[in-house]
Amino acid sequence: MIIVLKQGVTASAIKELTNRIESQGLAVSHFTDIKREFLGLIGDTTGMDPHQWQASPEVEQVIRVADPYKRANRKFHPQNSIVSVGDQTIGGDRLGIIAGPCSVESEEQIVTIAKQLKQAGANFLRGGAFKPRTSPYSFQGLELEGLKMLQTAKAETGLPIVTELMSTKWVDQFVESVDMIQIGARNMQNFDLLKEVGRTQTPVLLKRGLSATYKEWLMSAEYIMAAGNDNVILCERGIRTFETGTRNTLDIQAVPVMKELSHLPIIVDPSHAGGMSYLVEAGAKSGVVAGADGLMIEVHNDPANAWSDGEQCLTPDEFSSLMEKIRSLAIFEGRSVAEASTILTN
Amino acid sequence: MIIVLKQGVTASAIKELTNRIESQGLAVSHFTDIKREFLGLIGDTTGMDPHQWQASPEVEQVIRVADPYKRANRKFHPQNSIVSVGDQTIGGDRLGIIAGPCSVESEEQIVTIAKQLKQAGANFLRGGAFKPRTSPYSFQGLELEGLKMLQTAKAETGLPIVTELMSTKWVDQFVESVDMIQIGARNMQNFDLLKEVGRTQTPVLLKRGLSATYKEWLMSAEYIMAAGNDNVILCERGIRTFETGTRNTLDIQAVPVMKELSHLPIIVDPSHAGGMSYLVEAGAKSGVVAGADGLMIEVHNDPANAWSDGEQCLTPDEFSSLMEKIRSLAIFEGRSVAEASTILTN
Amino acid sequence: MIIVLKQGVTASAIKELTNRIESQGLAVSHFTDIKREFLGLIGDTTGMDPHQWQASPEVEQVIRVADPYKRANRKFHPQNSIVSVGDQTIGGDRLGIIAGPCSVESEEQIVTIAKQLKQAGANFLRGGAFKPRTSPYSFQGLELEGLKMLQTAKAETGLPIVTELMSTKWVDQFVESVDMIQIGARNMQNFDLLKEVGRTQTPVLLKRGLSATYKEWLMSAEYIMAAGNDNVILCERGIRTFETGTRNTLDIQAVPVMKELSHLPIIVDPSHAGGMSYLVEAGAKSGVVAGADGLMIEVHNDPANAWSDGEQCLTPDEFSSLMEKIRSLAIFEGRSVAEASTILTN
Amino acid sequence: MIIVLKQGVTASAIKELTNRIESQGLAVSHFTDIKREFLGLIGDTTGMDPHQWQASPEVEQVIRVADPYKRANRKFHPQNSIVSVGDQTIGGDRLGIIAGPCSVESEEQIVTIAKQLKQAGANFLRGGAFKPRTSPYSFQGLELEGLKMLQTAKAETGLPIVTELMSTKWVDQFVESVDMIQIGARNMQNFDLLKEVGRTQTPVLLKRGLSATYKEWLMSAEYIMAAGNDNVILCERGIRTFETGTRNTLDIQAVPVMKELSHLPIIVDPSHAGGMSYLVEAGAKSGVVAGADGLMIEVHNDPANAWSDGEQCLTPDEFSSLMEKIRSLAIFEGRSVAEASTILTN
Repeated sequence: MIIVLKQGVTASAIKELTNRIESQGLAVSHFTDIKREFLGLIGDTTGMDPHQWQASPEVEQVIRVADPYKRANRKFHPQNSIVSVGDQTIGGDRLGIIAGPCSVESEEQIVTIAKQLKQAGANFLRGGAFKPRTSPYSFQGLELEGLKMLQTAKAETGLPIVTELMSTKWVDQFVESVDMIQIGARNMQNFDLLKEVGRTQTPVLLKRGLSATYKEWLMSAEYIMAAGNDNVILCERGIRTFETGTRNTLDIQAVPVMKELSHLPIIVDPSHAGGMSYLVEAGAKSGVVAGADGLMIEVHNDPANAWSDGEQCLTPDEFSSLMEKIRSLAIFEGRSVAEASTILTN
Repeated sequence: MIIVLKQGVTASAIKELTNRIESQGLAVSHFTDIKREFLGLIGDTTGMDPHQWQASPEVEQVIRVADPYKRANRKFHPQNSIVSVGDQTIGGDRLGIIAGPCSVESEEQIVTIAKQLKQAGANFLRGGAFKPRTSPYSFQGLELEGLKMLQTAKAETGLPIVTELMSTKWVDQFVESVDMIQIGARNMQNFDLLKEVGRTQTPVLLKRGLSATYKEWLMSAEYIMAAGNDNVILCERGIRTFETGTRNTLDIQAVPVMKELSHLPIIVDPSHAGGMSYLVEAGAKSGVVAGADGLMIEVHNDPANAWSDGEQCLTPDEFSSLMEKIRSLAIFEGRSVAEASTILTN
Repeated sequence: MIIVLKQGVTASAIKELTNRIESQGLAVSHFTDIKREFLGLIGDTTGMDPHQWQASPEVEQVIRVADPYKRANRKFHPQNSIVSVGDQTIGGDRLGIIAGPCSVESEEQIVTIAKQLKQAGANFLRGGAFKPRTSPYSFQGLELEGLKMLQTAKAETGLPIVTELMSTKWVDQFVESVDMIQIGARNMQNFDLLKEVGRTQTPVLLKRGLSATYKEWLMSAEYIMAAGNDNVILCERGIRTFETGTRNTLDIQAVPVMKELSHLPIIVDPSHAGGMSYLVEAGAKSGVVAGADGLMIEVHNDPANAWSDGEQCLTPDEFSSLMEKIRSLAIFEGRSVAEASTILTN
Repeated sequence: MIIVLKQGVTASAIKELTNRIESQGLAVSHFTDIKREFLGLIGDTTGMDPHQWQASPEVEQVIRVADPYKRANRKFHPQNSIVSVGDQTIGGDRLGIIAGPCSVESEEQIVTIAKQLKQAGANFLRGGAFKPRTSPYSFQGLELEGLKMLQTAKAETGLPIVTELMSTKWVDQFVESVDMIQIGARNMQNFDLLKEVGRTQTPVLLKRGLSATYKEWLMSAEYIMAAGNDNVILCERGIRTFETGTRNTLDIQAVPVMKELSHLPIIVDPSHAGGMSYLVEAGAKSGVVAGADGLMIEVHNDPANAWSDGEQCLTPDEFSSLMEKIRSLAIFEGRSVAEASTILTN
């Protein structure tokens, strides 16, 4: 951390500030420009808030040089992390393809779709049981019933389950029932929830918040990891910008940036990013060539009658056709998608 | 809700779509342009997701005309709501001035500041006991200990207490201990938490999310109200934009917009918006002349040594000086700030 | 400028980089942390692009400490600038109130409105002769004819004229005909146009670009000043954000920030910011209490039939009523609005 | 266009509004909901500003249903446009690869790079002669000298030239000297400049403005086309968002969206979007799989000593290596990149 001092600060004020910094266990190094003096803070400043020094009257600017995240930082963990999810892995050469409907609507629906998805080549099943809806009057999900239906679908297909957790009160049920807990965009900085899933060993799919910076996103991963759970997978799902012609703006650059800053796997969700089914293919393929470790795609057997988010769902046939392209593209990129036949456990 | 049909859609497709709409208890009205056909949905579409119809292949566009919020909507509640908080009210002629430090640091600190604030004319005390920090390595608040210190400060000064709730597990303690529960910007769409505070009758200060639209913000208020708690006060605290020269961009227009759309009281928090103490006065005064029902201002006895957010805190003297201006400005606006002497209960 | 070197950079690479910096006439100072080395660039780096050094393989980060603007910088010009516009001034104790219709529509219209505005207390007349319209099929302004009508209105009322210049080819006509040249938001980084108006001595009203940062805005002022014209007045008119409930988001904090960074006068345009007439009062009053040196307000005799931007126009009566409040508020702030009677020259 | 009337509007007010609409040559159709009345405007509303009606007191909301752009609209021109640029084309099966340095620095530099680019497989040469720099103190380009150097490079390699035009005063020289005129992001709504290039037949590369919506971007294309020049190629180069970890956010979804809305070719510029060389590959490949008709990539023989934007430049070797991947990826997508050997004219 570097503190830029205001011009004309007295030596005694600098001395006093230096003492305050040193009292927090850091060493201080001086640096002088023609016009300005600087203080370099030497030591572990990871947990230190740069704003803390900003309030001092002699300080013009505080510049953080070191990254505030440790466990998620590639500098301290150069190899890519590979996270085991059920009998699959995400983060290595094989892409994880998570597919399924926005909401679990019935046992028949989810089992039917799960079979179609597996047939088409997905290796994880997603489906919302608890739904974060903007309106309290909209369908809120089948909740625990939905969770059971997902388990049935898993029993029938062998596909590991990914579903969203919105409340700390269901953590135990999720740990027992699901293979990966999804933390949604709106809860990315629900620190209480992050700490709770950090106390489990269940893999966590951490979606990027709608207006979260790269660093804030990694700090949320750090919350989970600092609590003891290293099984974190990032998910880029579009950010909020001025452009309203698409639901959100897919930030495809997030993939190489996260790969540079962190060792954690990252997947791309083109369905939520664009919010329209015709945008899914471009987003999915971009994710693969940008280096993502997987994709999350909404698929519904009857999009026009889906209980939520129908306009961004692919049909099983469209998904199947997309998967053929994704498989080839993965090979083009020196990777692969796990074959459906190798997934089935029963 | 109006559905714009694609050009060239067949009569039978329109008939089928009409049937589907009618099966949800709505009537349908036709409307024809030279080039296009439209369907008007007649009935209560409040809980209906416009996206539901977007997935149908014959649909070009779905336009919501009615507002998706009811209880928070001024159309159905033309008078301004006035919310009682402790022995005070927010929403009428008298402005509510909520002041205090970012974090409760010790009993002595919070009691001392509370006395100074009351002296200067604040009528509510704020102070963080549970802190939503970006980093897991930063100070997370004194938690329940902090809550007790706030109660001591209230006992000494009579000032009602406002503090942030981050977890459903402390709802009962908050209901017992505090006069107003703050829901922070990062939790504005933590629907689980909104439902829980909605089940209480404790007033809720609902901060706007960093990238929340006006409608999303009102829908979050609607969550609380739909669960049974009408005592909601909105708080504009800056939004995230491309501009990084200030911490956030204070959206002063939010005040008249919310007054137009809703009957709920709204206050302004200039401290978090700008993130720098020299910006507080302009933001606070703008809030008053824009029609806000109160202000929330961070004050710390020793900003340079505050445990968090020091650079945006006023000193008690600065706050006292600001309050003189705010009092005059309130009168200029045909309102007033409650006198300190009328607040003290003991 | 501080260059943060990557960890593990060799001494010879540092030496080579140091030589390259010194070859540009700067001195270099070293600074060492436990983990990192830094280079401080000593000398005038105002015109230097920090990105220039970023491309070097040994560089992790380049931090600009000095401001890139000189002439607009308050550090080198501590007193507020006061700009003379016609027989008025902007930037001192008296607020400049610029009012008028979006477009000049006819001589009768502009003369009539000008008289009403003067009566109500405006001290400048605005009106668009050249209109920057999003659509090529929309009315583009009366162009030079409109300019003549503005001059007629000035002859009748004495009000100095402010109007937008969009093309370098009309610079001479504008210098002859108008009292202040407006550079619109869309042209804020039309550097060619900035240089041309910089070669005149006509005051320039520089509107902030829709997505311009504070520093970019000041750099555009710097373009005008560097070309020889110090008569620059800034105008905050709303920025583009994710919020579409208002046309733009009025960044009221821009006023105190610009006052801190620069000595140039700044005014606020609440009409374009909000895009709706009911938002004008809140924005205008916020501008005054935030410290702005003036306001720009759209007024039309018949908003429902205005050729452009009718929904954000006040009627002359509404404007007159607003002006009463603005006059009192200016006095509250220790300033004033020039009386109409003192303005008339004939 | 649909006008939603306020509740309780009188029949006579509706009649009066209807008359006003009809007086503009449109027919009006009524439509009634339980709570509201609507007016449908029938006829050509392309040039009509929806805001025009918003100012009427009886109007609650105005909804534009028809697109405001005609010539750029795919609905009226279903086939993809193919634009001839020099002896090449952009918009068909073969991708256009535009490469070169940010600034032309010397004849030797540009000729050397041009040869390397051609060798690597580029089919167009770019290089800035007039530079839009944020600071007036930064290098502004070699101007007409630079233009001559580009022509020399073309003479040596046969590569058609693309370079940015910032001022209407150089239009004639550009028409004579260059194969494609680039309009930069900052000038996307410099309507004067758009009209001038619209009067030529030289192909125009229209970069998206930093905060331009899809519709505004198309309206700027419409300006050029309405003036008579249909040879417009769009270029996505990143938009400004809250994220500052990259220079801009590459909006990869813009490619399929523009393909849906318009028949114009679109290319992607990953160099300016990310602002860092390590992000170029991901952006370029994403562009290809998202369906772009070409790429624009910055290449410099010595990035660390480039006069501008060095940190985002590839070296010729890196570019050559990227081109191998792009060629394969183009084939994967059923397209191709023109071979270097087929380009050379001499």
